[in-house]
Amino acid sequence: MKNKQFTVDDQAILEEIMLYRRDVRGNKFLSTPVPQEAIQKILMAASLAPSVGFSQPWEFLVIRNEETKNKVVESFETENQKANVLFEGKKKSLYSQLKLEGIREAPVNIAVYYTSSKKPVLGQTSMKEAGEYSVVCAIQNMWLMARAMNIGLGWVSIIDPEVVKGILKSSPDSKLIAYLCIGYVDEFLESPELEMLEWEKRKELQSVVHYDD
Amino acid sequence: MKNKQFTVDDQAILEEIMLYRRDVRGNKFLSTPVPQEAIQKILMAASLAPSVGFSQPWEFLVIRNEETKNKVVESFETENQKANVLFEGKKKSLYSQLKLEGIREAPVNIAVYYTSSKKPVLGQTSMKEAGEYSVVCAIQNMWLMARAMNIGLGWVSIIDPEVVKGILKSSPDSKLIAYLCIGYVDEFLESPELEMLEWEKRKELQSVVHYDD
Repeated sequence: MKNKQFTVDDQAILEEIMLYRRDVRGNKFLSTPVPQEAIQKILMAASLAPSVGFSQPWEFLVIRNEETKNKVVESFETENQKANVLFEGKKKSLYSQLKLEGIREAPVNIAVYYTSSKKPVLGQTSMKEAGEYSVVCAIQNMWLMARAMNIGLGWVSIIDPEVVKGILKSSPDSKLIAYLCIGYVDEFLESPELEMLEWEKRKELQSVVHYDD
Repeated sequence: MKNKQFTVDDQAILEEIMLYRRDVRGNKFLSTPVPQEAIQKILMAASLAPSVGFSQPWEFLVIRNEETKNKVVESFETENQKANVLFEGKKKSLYSQLKLEGIREAPVNIAVYYTSSKKPVLGQTSMKEAGEYSVVCAIQNMWLMARAMNIGLGWVSIIDPEVVKGILKSSPDSKLIAYLCIGYVDEFLESPELEMLEWEKRKELQSVVHYDD
């Protein structure tokens, strides 16, 4: 359909999906299997993302293998111990109580890679990062589509990407952009957990918007 | 509303917004002013994006100043000339015919920055890029919300980010992640222009998805 026009009701639904999207960790995931059809739909959403020069530079590894998950948890634990000592005071004790991943609890994990092109890519000649950023746009599409399907998604960034690439036998040409945990949940928290715990305050929009009129 | 459940109709609307979203350039933008209310709504969508450690590391500069836009176009032109010589054969002549930005034509431009924290950020201790990636998630939210409002958005990446930061008098601590052009359009193309022109082929989803079951 050319020139599809969306309505204010459509906008309101999109806004709600964005508003109720959460980063989900292991204390919220259910073991209920996620149907392959749902995984396909989440990956299809990724493929609808914008990409620099229409390069579609993304690759996905869908992981359900317990042995693989256990090895990734080891990398998380190593990195999480290193992280814990960086925080001070109240944050130090709070940090150690937080559940920051759901690798084993989520029935499905997806590793998302950026694979660079050997030829020049239109639009990527002055800002190389545009390739990786295309992959991140795809991840945000996955996150929103998962939430619209009432499925939780959590992004685990406390891992050593090179170690995890070794565990996953990834191509040396690929960069690991994200390690995602996906599954049904007992509940979606009303607000981000780190906001509820006052780890960080929500910023006022006007404090981060400037004008050159 | 806690535990908001979305329906298959909601999923279908999200899928359509993703499907009909386009990267819009200067040959499609209309000069019709974009109400401040619409800009606010697009920025609000950005603020609903996930961010590592709830760090919300984004900043936005809304640009309507013609003089500023003209200077940014100069950076585009310099970088675009450098880019043109990188392509060969059919692509070389096609490249020079493409309209690859809409800086002047779009009534509103938005520069989007990542500003790193001086303190350690939860979740960013092992993968530093997670901060920039949060900003890209915010940009994808803006893109989808704009499309749901029937407003076009184009991401200009053929610029020298340091030169543009100079033009915009950006903080030296901020990294320019994206330069966006926003406005109403005469039409949204049915498919991405680079797909229609066979610059690149659409990848089959199955060719980029692998399994570790």
